[in-house]
Amino acid sequence: MVSDMECIFCKIVKSEIQSFKIYEDEKIIGVLDIMPAAKGQVLIIPKEHYENFYEVPDDVILKMFSLAKVIGKILIESFGAKGFHVVVNNGQIAGQTQPHICVFVVPRYGNEQVVVGWQKNQANPNELEEIKEKFIKEMSLGKVKQEKKKETEKKETEELLKIIYMADVVKRRQK
Amino acid sequence: MVSDMECIFCKIVKSEIQSFKIYEDEKIIGVLDIMPAAKGQVLIIPKEHYENFYEVPDDVILKMFSLAKVIGKILIESFGAKGFHVVVNNGQIAGQTQPHICVFVVPRYGNEQVVVGWQKNQANPNELEEIKEKFIKEMSLGKVKQEKKKETEKKETEELLKIIYMADVVKRRQK
Repeated sequence: MVSDMECIFCKIVKSEIQSFKIYEDEKIIGVLDIMPAAKGQVLIIPKEHYENFYEVPDDVILKMFSLAKVIGKILIESFGAKGFHVVVNNGQIAGQTQPHICVFVVPRYGNEQVVVGWQKNQANPNELEEIKEKFIKEMSLGKVKQEKKKETEKKETEELLKIIYMADVVKRRQK
Repeated sequence: MVSDMECIFCKIVKSEIQSFKIYEDEKIIGVLDIMPAAKGQVLIIPKEHYENFYEVPDDVILKMFSLAKVIGKILIESFGAKGFHVVVNNGQIAGQTQPHICVFVVPRYGNEQVVVGWQKNQANPNELEEIKEKFIKEMSLGKVKQEKKKETEKKETEELLKIIYMADVVKRRQK
């Protein structure tokens, strides 16, 4: 795996590699794709090095897709695009080329070579029911895990507050 | 244009059309795609009828992509997917088939017929510089517009507060 030090996107974030930066805040950057399908293709990159989409914290997720909205609107209203895709490719099999997740905003004018599509297969209702149950089960397990994590964090905070309080009491006594 | 009343996604949201719902909250639903490329393909749909991605408010955006993260993780950890795409198609030219925007989570196992890609063209640096400037200009214009809107809203709120206050004064005098 490529480390943060060797990661091209990390280097772009740190301005060690030149880029055409159109947006920057404390969490993300937006840069022009220098190998675009069409004019105005943008890459939105989190400043932290996350390999997978699901590792990106929610505050960064919000910033990335809020920027994608702005880019999409500008592409249509000012660049004359007739549409656009917002795409995340997670995993080599899905075409992820860098070990640092990013969001692509791909404008569509009509003459570019872009394919975003799949063969649609009629699914079996019984199988869909099973898949549904599996998702629901996994999501509730995830929720339980998160709540346990929160509980642990709460306990740790309480312990820490107790320690700080006790340290303060000791200090006062020493005065 | 299709109205909200005729919109298939609105009907799914209102449970007027049967679906395999795996998630629901006050703003969004997650349903299994009944015509998937592969097992576990999910559609994330805002409950409100928005035709374009950039019309979706930020709180709904956060909910949609936060759910996409959860789905992606479950696809990999529990369904055995090796990767996934998160896709928004905005505009007929981009393959949007319903006038109600949605987010697709498309799993990749290896044997499905999915193409998410584009022909990469080396861009001209001078042109990139121009495009960059245009984006920055448009974004700052958008910001000015937003600030003006906020200012107007603030003034309206102040006016409203004055009216409420005056009405209250009048009422007290009448007592």
